[in-house]
Amino acid sequence: MADTNPFSKYDFYFKNLLPGQSIDCVIIGYDQEELQILVLKWKGIDTWSLPGGFIQLDEDMDSAAVRILKSRTGLDIGFLDQFYTFGNKDRRSKDELIQGLKIINMNTSLAQWFKQRFISTGYLSLVDLKKCDPKPDILSDACEWKSIIKLPGLIFDHEQIVKKALGHIRIQLNYLPILISLLPDKFTMKDLQKLYEAILQKQLDRGNFQKKILKSGILIRLEKQLLGGAHKAPYLYKFDVVKYEKFLEKGTGFIS
Amino acid sequence: MADTNPFSKYDFYFKNLLPGQSIDCVIIGYDQEELQILVLKWKGIDTWSLPGGFIQLDEDMDSAAVRILKSRTGLDIGFLDQFYTFGNKDRRSKDELIQGLKIINMNTSLAQWFKQRFISTGYLSLVDLKKCDPKPDILSDACEWKSIIKLPGLIFDHEQIVKKALGHIRIQLNYLPILISLLPDKFTMKDLQKLYEAILQKQLDRGNFQKKILKSGILIRLEKQLLGGAHKAPYLYKFDVVKYEKFLEKGTGFIS
Repeated sequence: MADTNPFSKYDFYFKNLLPGQSIDCVIIGYDQEELQILVLKWKGIDTWSLPGGFIQLDEDMDSAAVRILKSRTGLDIGFLDQFYTFGNKDRRSKDELIQGLKIINMNTSLAQWFKQRFISTGYLSLVDLKKCDPKPDILSDACEWKSIIKLPGLIFDHEQIVKKALGHIRIQLNYLPILISLLPDKFTMKDLQKLYEAILQKQLDRGNFQKKILKSGILIRLEKQLLGGAHKAPYLYKFDVVKYEKFLEKGTGFIS
Repeated sequence: MADTNPFSKYDFYFKNLLPGQSIDCVIIGYDQEELQILVLKWKGIDTWSLPGGFIQLDEDMDSAAVRILKSRTGLDIGFLDQFYTFGNKDRRSKDELIQGLKIINMNTSLAQWFKQRFISTGYLSLVDLKKCDPKPDILSDACEWKSIIKLPGLIFDHEQIVKKALGHIRIQLNYLPILISLLPDKFTMKDLQKLYEAILQKQLDRGNFQKKILKSGILIRLEKQLLGGAHKAPYLYKFDVVKYEKFLEKGTGFIS
């Protein structure tokens, strides 16, 4: 009889891992309307989670995050940004865990591994949706983008992990080159404002936004965007990379 | 013969800890000139380190940070701010570790504990120096404030941990109520600018600084500070707590 338990081949693998420490990845895309989060559906159960995994004994934690993301979703990203470590003793619900372990029918030693208390470090990346082709791994039935405003329920504290990741990028909105990775090379002022609004989850005043962004000096104005009526066509902009980097280096927000 | 090994009483204690996970605390004070960091000198060796320790099996990580700080330094602080987790596989130098273990003459099982690979989570707090009375614990000869600009060499990656903590408070300078805890209730514009300069480690333009801070609306102007020549006396200010909280809630820096 063929072995249909997807975990059996991992038996040796688990012996090579740091106990009690996991990594969860919040991968954020943008479809020009809302932020999108990459989530996995566990094989055979209606349970969604962030792509996560464990750290090898002889592996830096940052490298583990890159390897885990690739092995769980197929996404090959050179660097992930660590944002927070989740260490509450009850962060994983026992009911969810037992239900999951039953359904995936693990052998005892693997069940022991998963029943440990885990402290999990969150890593995030902002990616261009169009350049990503996520694929579920052997443990999952699906690997999909879900809009931040209608995420499915996530296992354990993974919803809190997503919230914390968003808080992190909101605070760093003025400091890190996160905007560049989420916009096309040329964009309108409205595109940029919509991205800010999607990240901050609130409406911004158009005039005020435009004034502040232009004052920051990080944009170069290009030709008009040719649509129907030419007289109403908005200008296109691109980032002034040199000025943008200087702006980011200052790292001091409104006081500098 | 009396047992002079300070670790012997901890034998049972170590059985109650999460393996491989530690906490290091960066406690930052301000003496009106430079930021100060609280460091411990290990008993019998000329080695300085941040106050750190381990997490109990049945303890939330945030609570562990508070307990560890209290047990290592006597400082009783209700909350510490987690800022980063250090997970490089070679973050603890083997030479430093072996030298330390030899000198403190640990028994084998305790030496085994310390020889594990540890992933360490950094917690920070900004405190009022004058309200703190740090005391070394049983493992240490000294517990002292050292100026950030002339810290002694610290063990392992603790200097990197301090740097990362400073980076964290720089980014959050405009977002978190860190200023209130570092200044007296009433202060001059110059006091506030000096604190910003100590955190950012650079000179700021006086006129520009004053203009931006006043525009933010978070200060209430009080009476003049009475010194010698009354005509040159600077105004005192205090934080407008309601406006300051609103300002912090926005959490969006120069775009809001």
